[in-house]
Amino acid sequence: MRNIKLILEYDGSAFFGFQKQPGKPTVQEALEKALSAFFDKKMKISAASGRTDTGVHAEGQVVNFKTESDRDLKRIQKGLNAHLSPPVVVKSVEGVPADFHARYSARSKVYEYRIWNHPFRSPLLAARTCHVPYRLDLAAMRKAAKHFIGRHDFRSFTSEAMVRKGRANVSFVRTIQKLLIKKESSLIRIRVEADGFLYHMVRNLVGTLLEVGKGKLTPEAVPGLLRSRDRRAALGATVSPVGLTLLHVHYEEKSA
Amino acid sequence: MRNIKLILEYDGSAFFGFQKQPGKPTVQEALEKALSAFFDKKMKISAASGRTDTGVHAEGQVVNFKTESDRDLKRIQKGLNAHLSPPVVVKSVEGVPADFHARYSARSKVYEYRIWNHPFRSPLLAARTCHVPYRLDLAAMRKAAKHFIGRHDFRSFTSEAMVRKGRANVSFVRTIQKLLIKKESSLIRIRVEADGFLYHMVRNLVGTLLEVGKGKLTPEAVPGLLRSRDRRAALGATVSPVGLTLLHVHYEEKSA
Repeated sequence: MRNIKLILEYDGSAFFGFQKQPGKPTVQEALEKALSAFFDKKMKISAASGRTDTGVHAEGQVVNFKTESDRDLKRIQKGLNAHLSPPVVVKSVEGVPADFHARYSARSKVYEYRIWNHPFRSPLLAARTCHVPYRLDLAAMRKAAKHFIGRHDFRSFTSEAMVRKGRANVSFVRTIQKLLIKKESSLIRIRVEADGFLYHMVRNLVGTLLEVGKGKLTPEAVPGLLRSRDRRAALGATVSPVGLTLLHVHYEEKSA
Repeated sequence: MRNIKLILEYDGSAFFGFQKQPGKPTVQEALEKALSAFFDKKMKISAASGRTDTGVHAEGQVVNFKTESDRDLKRIQKGLNAHLSPPVVVKSVEGVPADFHARYSARSKVYEYRIWNHPFRSPLLAARTCHVPYRLDLAAMRKAAKHFIGRHDFRSFTSEAMVRKGRANVSFVRTIQKLLIKKESSLIRIRVEADGFLYHMVRNLVGTLLEVGKGKLTPEAVPGLLRSRDRRAALGATVSPVGLTLLHVHYEEKSA
């Protein structure tokens, strides 16, 4: 049995998220249909690095699947792409060890959130950015960002529904390795790398950073928000998925 | 009477080109509707720097219009943008001398054509690039590009219909000041600046450059194609409008 790793790019606006759900177009459904058509038998993926929500894009989503077929990797890539619709593509196909698991083997993931920070919208960037028309204090946002780096309980930055649903032994602790804010003319890119992300975590972090940018919250308030473990304390909206892209998933050298 | 210059950005995929035509959404129609709604009277623009075809984008299309209203420029910009639909925006509003004309005062225009040169498509770049899956010889394309620079009769690079329709005194002579080909990973940008462009000229130039990139035409063949003044000699298709963007229009210092 071969274990095969795929890297996918997709335009999130075409899908109701990654994970399969009845009656709605999802990336997983599109991919499993293409796998089944190409291998001419019912196929499922073994795992994805994680789910992306409705509207969230990916430049480097990772999935793996098992097959007994001995077809070569280049042929698999060409065949899958021929069966996939335009908003999704297989960027790379690689044979990996049997124990490689797209989710459990992942060491870290990198997301980027893009903001068009200008008084007027940008029609040409609208599909990939969230429009924030008011002035932002970048220096304050960068100070706040530093407080998020490290190992923390991020309960204040996931959805309340998730916290309520969580069993007693579910951990909300994650480690953010990097959180960088770059600005080029009116385009702000917030790049965050962590060992894992809770549901809505990036979009809620960005929502809070925007509150800091607007001056409604001081950077020094962030440690208290984390300690509160209370979503309502964190202020800030869950920002639009349209600005969010899963850039890369990093794996251990041996299995990636 | 004030003369007002607007710079527009638009997503060409939402329109049947710039110029008004009955029963189809066009940029001109959207803009004149917004002007009429804002000034509360029937308004038309005086001129645009040029027409862009169906599907062609603009980061810096320029138009001008006349008004007797004394409303301030910032209010005009806000008001027009409030009346415009998402795929078009007024990026700047400026008072200009009475003799400024968006088309006749233009000194040069800059277009960029983007090519995604990779064996597989890119879902996230598909709306702004033309996908070319085969290998291209960039060095040969750059050599060919040099032959286009300067003052030439570009009859071989406009549509045959235009040549047939043209009256005896219509000139097909234009001057290309710059023609640069840049590549970053798989993204090729072809930027061309000229004192004016014939119908389909950029897309036909790019089509011919792609023939050179594929090795079907030598760079040294270009002067002969120009001299032939025959569209059929130039080989190459009229490439897709989706990769084309009008970047800037340059005007004389005094009127810009």
